[in-house]
Amino acid sequence: MSSLIAQPITAEAFAPYGEVIQTEGAQLTLINDGLCHRFSDLASFDIEDGRAGLSFFRSQLRPMPYRCHLLERHPLGSQCFIPMSDAEFLLIVAPDNGGKPGPLTAFLATNNVAVNIARNTWHGVLAPVAGSGLFAVIDRIGTETNGGQNLEEHLLEEAVLVKYDQ
Amino acid sequence: MSSLIAQPITAEAFAPYGEVIQTEGAQLTLINDGLCHRFSDLASFDIEDGRAGLSFFRSQLRPMPYRCHLLERHPLGSQCFIPMSDAEFLLIVAPDNGGKPGPLTAFLATNNVAVNIARNTWHGVLAPVAGSGLFAVIDRIGTETNGGQNLEEHLLEEAVLVKYDQ
Repeated sequence: MSSLIAQPITAEAFAPYGEVIQTEGAQLTLINDGLCHRFSDLASFDIEDGRAGLSFFRSQLRPMPYRCHLLERHPLGSQCFIPMSDAEFLLIVAPDNGGKPGPLTAFLATNNVAVNIARNTWHGVLAPVAGSGLFAVIDRIGTETNGGQNLEEHLLEEAVLVKYDQ
Repeated sequence: MSSLIAQPITAEAFAPYGEVIQTEGAQLTLINDGLCHRFSDLASFDIEDGRAGLSFFRSQLRPMPYRCHLLERHPLGSQCFIPMSDAEFLLIVAPDNGGKPGPLTAFLATNNVAVNIARNTWHGVLAPVAGSGLFAVIDRIGTETNGGQNLEEHLLEEAVLVKYDQ
């Protein structure tokens, strides 16, 4: 089984796959008598044939090293994951290569960032490795008449083992 | 100074002021090979002359008892607070009484709920009492041509002291 090292996530490295949403580097406004910092409008929701809605996901934690055997993508919308605890979570992503995932890359997101995976980007399922496993998720909610084909899955020919360190 | 006891928040008690967003009582879908519970579409964003955007707020924690001297409301949009740590936060709300806040009510929200304050509902500022103070917030982002008069403030004639227990 081939293996992959998860790198700490950065906005720059993750840019081909989506947005890292964080206070670091974001423009700051002081509100509430200076007792609160507001970092405005950090995400771009990209939703087709539906609307952006708020859901909760409660995921089981994944033991490391993590065995990734499946990637998926959502042709109709971006998907934003907001950890609601001191969670670290894995992000396994890949460029598209003729309708299938190209070479995989793995990131480790720490507790202070949210991540907005771009529409139609290949990614592994939500895989928290610490914390409560509870996430707020902003993604496409289909209409009654158009539930939508918003999930495409790809089973890897060979599973990949994701680790933290070489 | 008059005082007020913060009650543990429930969806029913908070309903006149907005939504409590939680897994409890929400419809569940199993995803990701059964390893993740999805609770879909839990919030109603009510935004006028703009769009719902995602921001981060980092607020100072407030010592208890908490002295509330100011309420505010947002005529152009609901405001949804999602705690990103094991935060407990105070919600001080009031019905409208002829353009001013009526009698105040206080709630304590625990770490596993988010809260969507209804458009034009009087409320105190974000007041976490535990955790990191970091919140994801979904509220109105104004347009370039319409930044919007989306903040109305009301200074209380007499501050109110908010406590947990009688």
